[in-house]
Amino acid sequence: MWQPEYADHSATGRGTTTAAERTTPTGTRIESDSMGRIEVPAEHYWGAQTQRSLIHFSIGDDHMPKAVYHAYGYVKKAAAMVNQRAGRLDERRAAAIIQAADEVIAGDLDAEFPLYVWQTGSGTQSNMNVNEVIGNRAGELLGGTLGSKHPVHPNDHVNMGQSSNDTFPTAMHIATVLEVTGHLLPQVDRLTQAIRTKAEAWVDVVKIGRTHLQDATPLTVGQEWSGWATQLDDARTRLADSLHAVHQLAAGGTAVGTGLNAPEGFGEQIAAQLAELVGHPFVTTPNKFAAQGSLDAMVAVSAGLRGLAVALMKIANDMRWLASGPRAGLHELRLPANEPGSSIMPGKVNPTQQEAMVMVCLQVLGEDALIASAGAQGNFELNAMRPIVINNVLHSARILGDACEKLRRYSVEGTELDRPTIDGYVDQSLMLVTALSPTIGYDKASAIAHKADDEGTTLREAALASGVTAADFDRLADPSTMVGRPRSDLGLDRTDDKRSDDKRT
Amino acid sequence: MWQPEYADHSATGRGTTTAAERTTPTGTRIESDSMGRIEVPAEHYWGAQTQRSLIHFSIGDDHMPKAVYHAYGYVKKAAAMVNQRAGRLDERRAAAIIQAADEVIAGDLDAEFPLYVWQTGSGTQSNMNVNEVIGNRAGELLGGTLGSKHPVHPNDHVNMGQSSNDTFPTAMHIATVLEVTGHLLPQVDRLTQAIRTKAEAWVDVVKIGRTHLQDATPLTVGQEWSGWATQLDDARTRLADSLHAVHQLAAGGTAVGTGLNAPEGFGEQIAAQLAELVGHPFVTTPNKFAAQGSLDAMVAVSAGLRGLAVALMKIANDMRWLASGPRAGLHELRLPANEPGSSIMPGKVNPTQQEAMVMVCLQVLGEDALIASAGAQGNFELNAMRPIVINNVLHSARILGDACEKLRRYSVEGTELDRPTIDGYVDQSLMLVTALSPTIGYDKASAIAHKADDEGTTLREAALASGVTAADFDRLADPSTMVGRPRSDLGLDRTDDKRSDDKRT
Amino acid sequence: MWQPEYADHSATGRGTTTAAERTTPTGTRIESDSMGRIEVPAEHYWGAQTQRSLIHFSIGDDHMPKAVYHAYGYVKKAAAMVNQRAGRLDERRAAAIIQAADEVIAGDLDAEFPLYVWQTGSGTQSNMNVNEVIGNRAGELLGGTLGSKHPVHPNDHVNMGQSSNDTFPTAMHIATVLEVTGHLLPQVDRLTQAIRTKAEAWVDVVKIGRTHLQDATPLTVGQEWSGWATQLDDARTRLADSLHAVHQLAAGGTAVGTGLNAPEGFGEQIAAQLAELVGHPFVTTPNKFAAQGSLDAMVAVSAGLRGLAVALMKIANDMRWLASGPRAGLHELRLPANEPGSSIMPGKVNPTQQEAMVMVCLQVLGEDALIASAGAQGNFELNAMRPIVINNVLHSARILGDACEKLRRYSVEGTELDRPTIDGYVDQSLMLVTALSPTIGYDKASAIAHKADDEGTTLREAALASGVTAADFDRLADPSTMVGRPRSDLGLDRTDDKRSDDKRT
Amino acid sequence: MWQPEYADHSATGRGTTTAAERTTPTGTRIESDSMGRIEVPAEHYWGAQTQRSLIHFSIGDDHMPKAVYHAYGYVKKAAAMVNQRAGRLDERRAAAIIQAADEVIAGDLDAEFPLYVWQTGSGTQSNMNVNEVIGNRAGELLGGTLGSKHPVHPNDHVNMGQSSNDTFPTAMHIATVLEVTGHLLPQVDRLTQAIRTKAEAWVDVVKIGRTHLQDATPLTVGQEWSGWATQLDDARTRLADSLHAVHQLAAGGTAVGTGLNAPEGFGEQIAAQLAELVGHPFVTTPNKFAAQGSLDAMVAVSAGLRGLAVALMKIANDMRWLASGPRAGLHELRLPANEPGSSIMPGKVNPTQQEAMVMVCLQVLGEDALIASAGAQGNFELNAMRPIVINNVLHSARILGDACEKLRRYSVEGTELDRPTIDGYVDQSLMLVTALSPTIGYDKASAIAHKADDEGTTLREAALASGVTAADFDRLADPSTMVGRPRSDLGLDRTDDKRSDDKRT
Repeated sequence: MWQPEYADHSATGRGTTTAAERTTPTGTRIESDSMGRIEVPAEHYWGAQTQRSLIHFSIGDDHMPKAVYHAYGYVKKAAAMVNQRAGRLDERRAAAIIQAADEVIAGDLDAEFPLYVWQTGSGTQSNMNVNEVIGNRAGELLGGTLGSKHPVHPNDHVNMGQSSNDTFPTAMHIATVLEVTGHLLPQVDRLTQAIRTKAEAWVDVVKIGRTHLQDATPLTVGQEWSGWATQLDDARTRLADSLHAVHQLAAGGTAVGTGLNAPEGFGEQIAAQLAELVGHPFVTTPNKFAAQGSLDAMVAVSAGLRGLAVALMKIANDMRWLASGPRAGLHELRLPANEPGSSIMPGKVNPTQQEAMVMVCLQVLGEDALIASAGAQGNFELNAMRPIVINNVLHSARILGDACEKLRRYSVEGTELDRPTIDGYVDQSLMLVTALSPTIGYDKASAIAHKADDEGTTLREAALASGVTAADFDRLADPSTMVGRPRSDLGLDRTDDKRSDDKRT
Repeated sequence: MWQPEYADHSATGRGTTTAAERTTPTGTRIESDSMGRIEVPAEHYWGAQTQRSLIHFSIGDDHMPKAVYHAYGYVKKAAAMVNQRAGRLDERRAAAIIQAADEVIAGDLDAEFPLYVWQTGSGTQSNMNVNEVIGNRAGELLGGTLGSKHPVHPNDHVNMGQSSNDTFPTAMHIATVLEVTGHLLPQVDRLTQAIRTKAEAWVDVVKIGRTHLQDATPLTVGQEWSGWATQLDDARTRLADSLHAVHQLAAGGTAVGTGLNAPEGFGEQIAAQLAELVGHPFVTTPNKFAAQGSLDAMVAVSAGLRGLAVALMKIANDMRWLASGPRAGLHELRLPANEPGSSIMPGKVNPTQQEAMVMVCLQVLGEDALIASAGAQGNFELNAMRPIVINNVLHSARILGDACEKLRRYSVEGTELDRPTIDGYVDQSLMLVTALSPTIGYDKASAIAHKADDEGTTLREAALASGVTAADFDRLADPSTMVGRPRSDLGLDRTDDKRSDDKRT
Repeated sequence: MWQPEYADHSATGRGTTTAAERTTPTGTRIESDSMGRIEVPAEHYWGAQTQRSLIHFSIGDDHMPKAVYHAYGYVKKAAAMVNQRAGRLDERRAAAIIQAADEVIAGDLDAEFPLYVWQTGSGTQSNMNVNEVIGNRAGELLGGTLGSKHPVHPNDHVNMGQSSNDTFPTAMHIATVLEVTGHLLPQVDRLTQAIRTKAEAWVDVVKIGRTHLQDATPLTVGQEWSGWATQLDDARTRLADSLHAVHQLAAGGTAVGTGLNAPEGFGEQIAAQLAELVGHPFVTTPNKFAAQGSLDAMVAVSAGLRGLAVALMKIANDMRWLASGPRAGLHELRLPANEPGSSIMPGKVNPTQQEAMVMVCLQVLGEDALIASAGAQGNFELNAMRPIVINNVLHSARILGDACEKLRRYSVEGTELDRPTIDGYVDQSLMLVTALSPTIGYDKASAIAHKADDEGTTLREAALASGVTAADFDRLADPSTMVGRPRSDLGLDRTDDKRSDDKRT
Repeated sequence: MWQPEYADHSATGRGTTTAAERTTPTGTRIESDSMGRIEVPAEHYWGAQTQRSLIHFSIGDDHMPKAVYHAYGYVKKAAAMVNQRAGRLDERRAAAIIQAADEVIAGDLDAEFPLYVWQTGSGTQSNMNVNEVIGNRAGELLGGTLGSKHPVHPNDHVNMGQSSNDTFPTAMHIATVLEVTGHLLPQVDRLTQAIRTKAEAWVDVVKIGRTHLQDATPLTVGQEWSGWATQLDDARTRLADSLHAVHQLAAGGTAVGTGLNAPEGFGEQIAAQLAELVGHPFVTTPNKFAAQGSLDAMVAVSAGLRGLAVALMKIANDMRWLASGPRAGLHELRLPANEPGSSIMPGKVNPTQQEAMVMVCLQVLGEDALIASAGAQGNFELNAMRPIVINNVLHSARILGDACEKLRRYSVEGTELDRPTIDGYVDQSLMLVTALSPTIGYDKASAIAHKADDEGTTLREAALASGVTAADFDRLADPSTMVGRPRSDLGLDRTDDKRSDDKRT
């Protein structure tokens, strides 16, 4: 049995199996590192250090995201290209490393990266996992034997000019940029557009506003939804801006930021190569000590993510409250009924997409707080809280993007208005009194509203009973003239501004 | 000018003045410590170390809570009593120290404790502030000269057998117990009782329940409010239990937990003395290394506080939603109108007490998280995050207690039901269909509810149109029989259980 | 193609596949619910509502923990037993449901529970997943056809007398109790014992204490480690106590807490049955409205988890700092070298277990904060933040337990002392001066320490130069007499107290 | 006795007095609002609504920051100017309002703003406090009687064209910009400059780097400090950028964002007027619904603040660890000894400025998390969590700025190096072996380092014993050539790059 301590672990009765347990090894081979020799599963490319990490760190089910390894593939490829161009790495080895790195980038070797999030705080074990896999795979391509480190050595060749301390942060930044720009931002944009489309469709539907949850002066449904779209636009802009921080790469700093064992100019060259390969404006960071000793750039991106969560939570809450009912709630909105809402209450429909979104937002807020906390735990030349930070950042970005897609497809796009309810609230509203205030004064207006509330009458009845003329009332307290410029607020034509088209009859 | 650096500080243009600036010194005297001599305001009892701290740590407006000093007065008094009984401290000095400590406990010397929260992490400067004030005041009582340290020396006599590292935690624990038991728990109990009184008054008022914000099966208002009361009861029990952790005192551990320079048995004796003086079951902690190296007991109390905040936030949110309207909201409750709600909307009334409570709860949740974070920052023989922890714990307890009082007096006690609205919701409800389900099956029941919703009819109309007999419907879907045992849920008499008294007509 | 919308989803280019995508369906069958008909993979037991949830909620890779389903198996089994005993469920159906539930409990049907964490906030979809799987599986056992709901109906039979709103919380509580008592507490206890064993072995090894990171008075290594063990013991006690909150079960409350459609006494009976089946002291909760409207009990358990994290973070930090070096750090401890520490620095060994533990603790602190935040989001008769809470609680418990095991096996048990370094620090210490203070006074003692620091001499040299006699110095400043009662602190025999055995030569 | 409920409150035995209690009223006068008449202290300008708030919301000691009122003074002044120019407000009233507003801005009326943070979530009570004070004061200037609302009415004149819902956010933004730019950023810049000055002074001092707390390859002290300076520069840039969000003002949106009762163009005009008066680039926000329904802009600024806290916590921790000792710690740095460190350990000096900074940073991180949480609690047309957000943002900015000043003046500027210790670590280091790695390979280099560690020899001894020639060793493992380009890293001249000037002899 090749790995007794590890096998031993499965005997603790935990319900989940680990990556190594799933390999159903058909045999083992010997790999070695500076700690000595160790058996690894024969069918895998990983080596001694990966194996040791699997033994020592099988904690929970949290695995280092594959996106980190894909990004690392770019780093190793770019390093090989730069090293080869400078004559430090021969063409044959370089080509093999580049081919193996391409396989990593493409996800073809995902099964070779079994490590956990909870490992060394520098991500060294994941870097070595990459070095070992690429080393063995490149060696194999060149006819070598797995585990021999010949002709491609994981440290001397694959890791040439690099350290975990500069390349793991580099891979983190690349993975973050790809996840945010490739997944999250497009989903946010689609959701924003779906909201904006609704806002335009309902630009002139007058409804009662609510502040402090209490009835307030009117606005249009389109205006309300335009506020949501604007929140999302602003949040996405701030998130996109935050990416500038992670466009700066630590590669070239090696162990402690001085660039020891990396040649002159390596940082600039690998950043330029990565910019070309990945297609994002990466540059070398001007001060490697800050980049490696801190996680400040990642904390900044996390702030961008949580800004989005803050906006989405407000929007999701508004939607589910506006859809509450159908008989004992606000019920201005009719959300699509995607599934039965209750195992016991027949016919119940719940705002499930919105609930899922609220939970996602709470998770992102929590993860943001812990990212900031981890970001503050740096010591000297390294912040050794890197795996927890990249895992949470990528997780937050992923679930936010997915939740945006689901909310859009399965709720926003199919949402409809309950016009009778909306109109009824406007008819009964007492806060139209606000429009009388500039004419009759705040104090008298207030007395009228209180009178209507106390006596259960309409505002008009109370106003007339208080001496306001019917003509004045109908002219001043017309909700359709109380909503400002809804089309202008949405950037539409301004022809009919200052009064809504959508006169209720 | 006695303190140029300090005066200099005021030149930074900050709007707030500091304690020392407020003293309008009539002159200065010389005090000294192991760093040398320094001028202090003549009219104050504090000495050199307090003065140095005032210079070096005037950060924000956060002052160490006076409650810490009152608690410290007990510690110094108890230590003097123990030391005198053992013959280590002569009777004359002991009597003077005890008298001065009594003045500290009574708050008579509050103006002598000007230091900030942001200071040394052990609270040493506050301990020395106490030592200096008691030393000078006791010396004065014995005819000595302020600043002479004779006949009472702040370290050798007032601090005898003590260190900041064991006495500051001790004072923290005492202050926490006094604040929680003296202020917070009584206010929680009064609020709980007020809620329970309402629950009993409305035990039989049938209303529509809501889950996922959507209409659900009925319950009584009394049952709903009984849930709130139970949440508070459970939270207060957990908070009270958490105090056991802070009944254990570190005093006797001195510098690092070994008790160096404290005599044999000092820990037990001072804890017993404190138990007697303060009137709470204090004991010496069995392991001083844990007590001084960690803040775990305080973190546990903070969890108790946040448990209360979690419950209160739910209750406050329920109340303000149930009071929403008056015309375009749920409006089952009428909250007292304490003040005009708007500067522009006449007659508006807002759930301001509930909003204040929600904000207080969010603040407490935030402070709890930072307390836990600070609690995790211990190193070796000391957790040097003590001032931030005691300040936040006492603050959370204070604002929670005050907010409970305000919510009770100005909102809960005056809350009334809007019966027509409540009854109307019951009449229109579709979820009464649930009661048909055991008889006609979930699937058919579901079809009836959807039919009523789609067609905008009552449930009864849809049921009858679907083949349910009127007799069956009226027997099964009677809301007054669908609420279980409301009186039993409240611990009231069970006579009329299984059906409500409060038949709506 | 059976599920176009779902397949569509995979076209967004996400790297991860979802459960349904992995099923490689060999065909489909029709299932139905109150929303209508839908195709599901033929080889699975789940039904229409599970399938709808898979379509609408494939968000991230966070799946509802299997432990929730195992616990739910107990709930369904207990309900069937109670219903059968009361004659509401016939013996044949009951037996089939019980057998299917046993398969769920055993984990044999884990592949049938593919849903995500991010779903309806009540967990209804997971409840229906269980109802559908048990319904189909039990029906199959009785010769029925999958998807026919005959002879076993997911709602009418499997969910009989239940709602998601009372059973999902019940399953949460059971899963929490099993995870904490079955996994976490044993691992904490083993770690505590390993620490205590070290404490006893080193009870008499005198070392220099540190407060504020600065040299302080001496203690023994055993005392320092006893502090860690005590922290863990206290935290585990508080965690174990917190379980009382989740021993109370909501089952019996059904939809809104009134118990509608559940028979008289159902809550008491199912709780008793669960207590017997699971082997933990479960009881029915006295107020279902609080239990279903809040998550306060779960928040309380989370506080217990984070209390453990707070203690563990301190211990892990202490260990890695004490092991820092080997040449430019404190280096009192030699941790086992489990793996190479660096990809670029040969021979480097890092405190990786401690780093992993610190990250785990930061994660748990973050998850605790979001659990509390979610716990405060209840509305009316339901807190619809249940999936996020159970997922984070179980995750925190899991990673804490695993990290305790790893830290113990791979670091604590193999840790050794660097005695020369420890002894050297004691020899050079200036803080032994504290022992002179009671004799010569604080101010003179302070001057001696400053003199030694300024002049770079030993404390003894400075003391003698200041007039202390050699005899006095050697008698008073003997570190072995300055550590109190280390054996007593560890609960060992007290024979040699007040002086250490371990005289350094 | 004019306010029995309030007086009653003081009888609860709380130690702190409230603003109203401090007024020692010499008498009362009658003020009124839409709720009716109420007595207020005769010597104050505030009116009925302020008085009601004082009664209902005396929670804790947290008062709305005076900076909010100063900012509000600008808002009222600008509104009066715009209204007067448009002919809506007569010149006489406008002039009086402007004069009263100037007194508010100058802080002359600070004693008139006694309200608490915990109040209505819109800040309406603080807006009305301003309206009442300016109304009464302006009326007084025009010969009117306090409380008469003539000739200046608080709502109709002072609040003309405004609502709390648009002006309180406006005042929040102005106060935030002034606090951050006027106080915090200058203090950050001074601290950064002080750090940079040290970095330049020590640019060539070679020291051993540390990663994972373990010895790593060398760098210079100047490089290490340059990392800190860069972290601060980056954080301050991000914070300054975040202010763009709060340059957008909601004024003009009035009650719900539609601008009801505000004239056409009012938003643009008042923003332009405020930009001129305050001297910052304020503009009207393009979508008032987002601005009033959310607090997203404030959440973004808070992220900037916490980014600074994350950087400062790392720097403060590094400093205190590097100063640890003096005999049993790292002790590369000698921090200024500002005060005695211990009440029991004579001569002890602690890193108190750094501890205070760490606590301040933890507080800011906690406040940031709660600000984000409050920011997510908006509903419909208003986020009613405004007072908690502005209070925490201003608090965080204030204590960060103050702590930066204190850390700089009392620690950074006086910090010195312990050169013998620094040099000694370099001499004994094993990680210089890294420089051999490119020549002899990672594996052999690793063996040499382990050999030296196991045998307690220098690296040179182990290398030579392993076959490395003395010439090779001395050439390759020269720490002064292993630090890259320290002068370039600091932006200094590059003459001596690639080798340090500071050869140790």
